[in-house]
Amino acid sequence: MKALVIGTGAVGSFYGALLAKQGADVSVVARTDYEVVRFRGIEVESPLGHLHFMPHRVVRDAAELPDKPDYVLVCVKIVEQADRVALLRGALGPDTSIVLIANGIDIEHEIFRAYPDHELISGLAFICVTRTAPGKIWHQAYGRLVLGDYPYGLSERVHRLRTAFQKSGIPCISSEDIISARWQKCVWNAAFNPTSVLSGGLGTADILSTQEPLVRALMREIQSIGTAAGYAMPDDIVDRNVESTRRMPPYKTSMLLDFEAGRPMETEAILGNAVRAARKAGVSAPHLETVYALLKLRELQITSASSQAQR
Amino acid sequence: MKALVIGTGAVGSFYGALLAKQGADVSVVARTDYEVVRFRGIEVESPLGHLHFMPHRVVRDAAELPDKPDYVLVCVKIVEQADRVALLRGALGPDTSIVLIANGIDIEHEIFRAYPDHELISGLAFICVTRTAPGKIWHQAYGRLVLGDYPYGLSERVHRLRTAFQKSGIPCISSEDIISARWQKCVWNAAFNPTSVLSGGLGTADILSTQEPLVRALMREIQSIGTAAGYAMPDDIVDRNVESTRRMPPYKTSMLLDFEAGRPMETEAILGNAVRAARKAGVSAPHLETVYALLKLRELQITSASSQAQR
Repeated sequence: MKALVIGTGAVGSFYGALLAKQGADVSVVARTDYEVVRFRGIEVESPLGHLHFMPHRVVRDAAELPDKPDYVLVCVKIVEQADRVALLRGALGPDTSIVLIANGIDIEHEIFRAYPDHELISGLAFICVTRTAPGKIWHQAYGRLVLGDYPYGLSERVHRLRTAFQKSGIPCISSEDIISARWQKCVWNAAFNPTSVLSGGLGTADILSTQEPLVRALMREIQSIGTAAGYAMPDDIVDRNVESTRRMPPYKTSMLLDFEAGRPMETEAILGNAVRAARKAGVSAPHLETVYALLKLRELQITSASSQAQR
Repeated sequence: MKALVIGTGAVGSFYGALLAKQGADVSVVARTDYEVVRFRGIEVESPLGHLHFMPHRVVRDAAELPDKPDYVLVCVKIVEQADRVALLRGALGPDTSIVLIANGIDIEHEIFRAYPDHELISGLAFICVTRTAPGKIWHQAYGRLVLGDYPYGLSERVHRLRTAFQKSGIPCISSEDIISARWQKCVWNAAFNPTSVLSGGLGTADILSTQEPLVRALMREIQSIGTAAGYAMPDDIVDRNVESTRRMPPYKTSMLLDFEAGRPMETEAILGNAVRAARKAGVSAPHLETVYALLKLRELQITSASSQAQR
């Protein structure tokens, strides 16, 4: 199996390392971390053990690769600053499948439209993993992956990829209805990501133990929007998310980690797209509308503070 | 006229100085600023001119005063840390009127219940004023005062106090329905105070120009709750508040100033009481519920960060 990973952040580095460990021939596209990754590879500290991932090739641009891969894993945050369609230019051979592993909802259509002749596998990572320095990844916990063809279905290639990940030691399941799976994951993300940032940095345990009604209201709105948009949202999805969060150790959300590190946040992929889907479906979502508007204000404040600092 | 001002923060110092300027015999209860105010008085920089307010007496406890005043002005923020009933102990002669000048709604009943034999005048200050140091007050803009008997009505004593303030150079009007006036003021406060803090420090102009729908939604909910609770809320109150804010220079809310200075915020007086009134009246207020819950999380984060810092 030949794979190319676009993005040497936490998610791409981790799942790329797992595929390489299984014997796949894995190259990476690196930008800011190019020098480090090219010469020293990527170190992953994980409950699965220490991994030293030396990519087959390290390139700055996918078009530099002489052989086209079977799979291109697009592992970049869904933020305005990252043009996913452009990143894929030159990466694809006639039989290359695109694998998009990212948070959020309604995030596939740009790639789907730009590359209609390629299989698009959509993926969800349930993982706590951080890039602590260029080429250094800290896998703290979890790691489950859900894969499925976009907009629906399961190909032989999804099964092959799933098998490779399963053998590497993480749970990997496939879903014939990946859009529903994405909406289901968004139930948790839409509740805890914005509240962790807007609270100024609280973990999930503090948020849930003091403001459970808000958490549930945000979750219920995602459930209603997903249902109205035609996706499978189990009746007990809110209860299950609340209960599983109660059993988790206190957890910093990925949006909070981005916020604290001064990186762009996935505000649009998680909240903006949910709110737009609500409006389109005619579903009332006042709690989501409020946290979305507040996150946009928070982002505006960050931008104006940093442009003032540059003066 | 004999007056006692409890609280040498921005509001109490400013309005106390105005009464003294009009010839009233004004004493003050000071706590942290006692030494400075006792020996140097209070300096007020204002568009009305420079005022040097030397109180008749400066005491640490109202009970120390030999003569009981005609009016006791209670000018402390409505936060959990300030026990307004206790501050009034020993301050009242048989004919003393209590004047409560503060933000928020449903903030009078503790005093009303504790001192049923005294007139309670409720007051609203539309002012931008800051205490820059002990005994130093910076009056930036505005200053209008609205006074009325609680729960309703207008006594001769309200008129007397109003006249004294009017002569001092600020607009002062009286209202026979001060609770409605308080709800009307809350329309603005409930929209801009929490958004200024949760955005991380934006002024009113940035908030309104980018998130007007949220501003209007919060304002409309206060309008609905006030109406359902039986108070007079003009039909065009949301439009008028939006328009007048558009004409204001960019403005930092009082809650944001408290937040930035590390002081307690009037979360309960402004948001908590509005949300509780909504629940009591059976009015849906999801935008207010959300910003209230988020402010409580923000406060929790501040408390836990400061208790960690003390370790």
